[in-house]
Amino acid sequence: MRRLLDELIAPALCFPNLDMQHDGASFALAGARLAFTTDSYVVRPLEFPGGNIGSLAVTGTVNDLAMCGARPKFLSLGLILEEGLDFELLQRVLASVREAAVEAGVEVVTGDTKVVDHGKGDGIYINTAGIGLREHDLRLGPERVEAGDAVLLSGDLGRHGIAIMAVREGLEFENPVASDAAPLHEPVLAMLAAGVTPHCLRDATRGGLASALVEIAAGAGLELAIDERAISVCAEVRGACELLGLDVLHVANEGRFVALVPEAQVEDALACLRACSVSREATRIGTVRPGRGRVVLRTTVGLERPVEMLTGAPLPRIC
Amino acid sequence: MRRLLDELIAPALCFPNLDMQHDGASFALAGARLAFTTDSYVVRPLEFPGGNIGSLAVTGTVNDLAMCGARPKFLSLGLILEEGLDFELLQRVLASVREAAVEAGVEVVTGDTKVVDHGKGDGIYINTAGIGLREHDLRLGPERVEAGDAVLLSGDLGRHGIAIMAVREGLEFENPVASDAAPLHEPVLAMLAAGVTPHCLRDATRGGLASALVEIAAGAGLELAIDERAISVCAEVRGACELLGLDVLHVANEGRFVALVPEAQVEDALACLRACSVSREATRIGTVRPGRGRVVLRTTVGLERPVEMLTGAPLPRIC
Repeated sequence: MRRLLDELIAPALCFPNLDMQHDGASFALAGARLAFTTDSYVVRPLEFPGGNIGSLAVTGTVNDLAMCGARPKFLSLGLILEEGLDFELLQRVLASVREAAVEAGVEVVTGDTKVVDHGKGDGIYINTAGIGLREHDLRLGPERVEAGDAVLLSGDLGRHGIAIMAVREGLEFENPVASDAAPLHEPVLAMLAAGVTPHCLRDATRGGLASALVEIAAGAGLELAIDERAISVCAEVRGACELLGLDVLHVANEGRFVALVPEAQVEDALACLRACSVSREATRIGTVRPGRGRVVLRTTVGLERPVEMLTGAPLPRIC
Repeated sequence: MRRLLDELIAPALCFPNLDMQHDGASFALAGARLAFTTDSYVVRPLEFPGGNIGSLAVTGTVNDLAMCGARPKFLSLGLILEEGLDFELLQRVLASVREAAVEAGVEVVTGDTKVVDHGKGDGIYINTAGIGLREHDLRLGPERVEAGDAVLLSGDLGRHGIAIMAVREGLEFENPVASDAAPLHEPVLAMLAAGVTPHCLRDATRGGLASALVEIAAGAGLELAIDERAISVCAEVRGACELLGLDVLHVANEGRFVALVPEAQVEDALACLRACSVSREATRIGTVRPGRGRVVLRTTVGLERPVEMLTGAPLPRIC
């Protein structure tokens, strides 16, 4: 996927400000500081513990705007429906779109529906695009990260990916794992309102925390030193990862993000995060050091190992 | 499709400002007057005379912004690719995305790529969303239309739909019909710059001119009297329609629109339209009369017949 993006799609499109990989674009239009983002959702199964493709399509795009430091305002909704789709399922999905949008304070203002032949889709695919308002002048991104910055993580890892995989693999837990999918703009806006000036925000979705950290380290040209003991993983997720042979750092989340903030602002930032229920278990998990664009994990037994991005495609259609 | 939208999708979503059927949303954000729209493109075949799914995905969304009276500025691009897709085809499609965007003066600033299993897609599906800038205070829509308004049409009909159907049905013409897909913002902005104040703009895409007119008549609660002799159709399209048993008024276009303008502005509006190559053959095709929300066509032989919206789905996946 990365090679497809880097070697084929990005060069063919060749737009100077286009980033096909994350988050959104930030620009000013007629004096308004906007953020703009899109994602298509092809998650399988369409319904899973903690949500469905509809709630995910709203939350995911809301979070991409939040990672731009923007207040999510307006969404578009593009439905690609497969002929023969169960209309009750569609109604449940649309009800979740509405519920998630209301919860996140965004309005779906424009939409489109296409129907494709049976066997040319998979029930429902959804695209959402979102417009957010940046109420500040802050520039955010890996290139803004500085040596000495603290790495904060908003909560425990792995719930979304494991919730999906459990359904697919027929795993049963005593305490079922639900997706962590939730809007993240409140903790972000709370930090900004409190005068915290993060250098970079990134949600740990496809590719998990590992991908988010590796991309930040590479973009910053610095080393991220992460302490595994500070990373929270619940017992069910830990057990499922062992069973499935997954590294929890590679498992997708839909309600967790990392914030890179100046050392002097760590206490303020954590206070803001912990005041929001979605990020009440935020912790500091590491520090940025001079280095060569890599992530080093100090494990629970005190060894250091490099963290790599996930290669191959072990978790397709997770979002 | 209409019942699906009206009876299931719209009620389930229940957003007051959401119109799932056309064009885009218009709103102000931090003082900027914006338009926002989305469309998914599932056209089959992916390449056709006059374009491919990539150029169509740009042009279609640019035109939805134009129909809001907005200057198209920024696009998002969501790709849903089927495993096993021919990469050379993908490159041609992306090159067309770029070319069409450059031609229309828009920038693709954010994107997303998802890959779905073989047999769960159809090569390439594309969603684009667009942001445009409204440089005026004009409110546009069927509800603004008044008795006495003139109905202008920007060019001849049926080229897009027939270009697609010809490939699907294996029709061969002496002079092959190419899609009319082309950006329409220039003639719209030219009218606005010249002081023309249209009451409603609508491109005649899915469902053809008939659908556009019927929706305007219904929304206005007035009668649109249309003169068939003023509607231009080239010989190849006319012949193909006869062969395929299609009414050209129901055939999709991707570079034609209707403008409803005050009678006093007809000459100015036509001068603006005819100065742009995409609408150089613009004509007046009718007049709005008091009535009950229907469209009446005066045929070439002088009879009057009602124009109905296309029912059923004779032209699926035309865009």
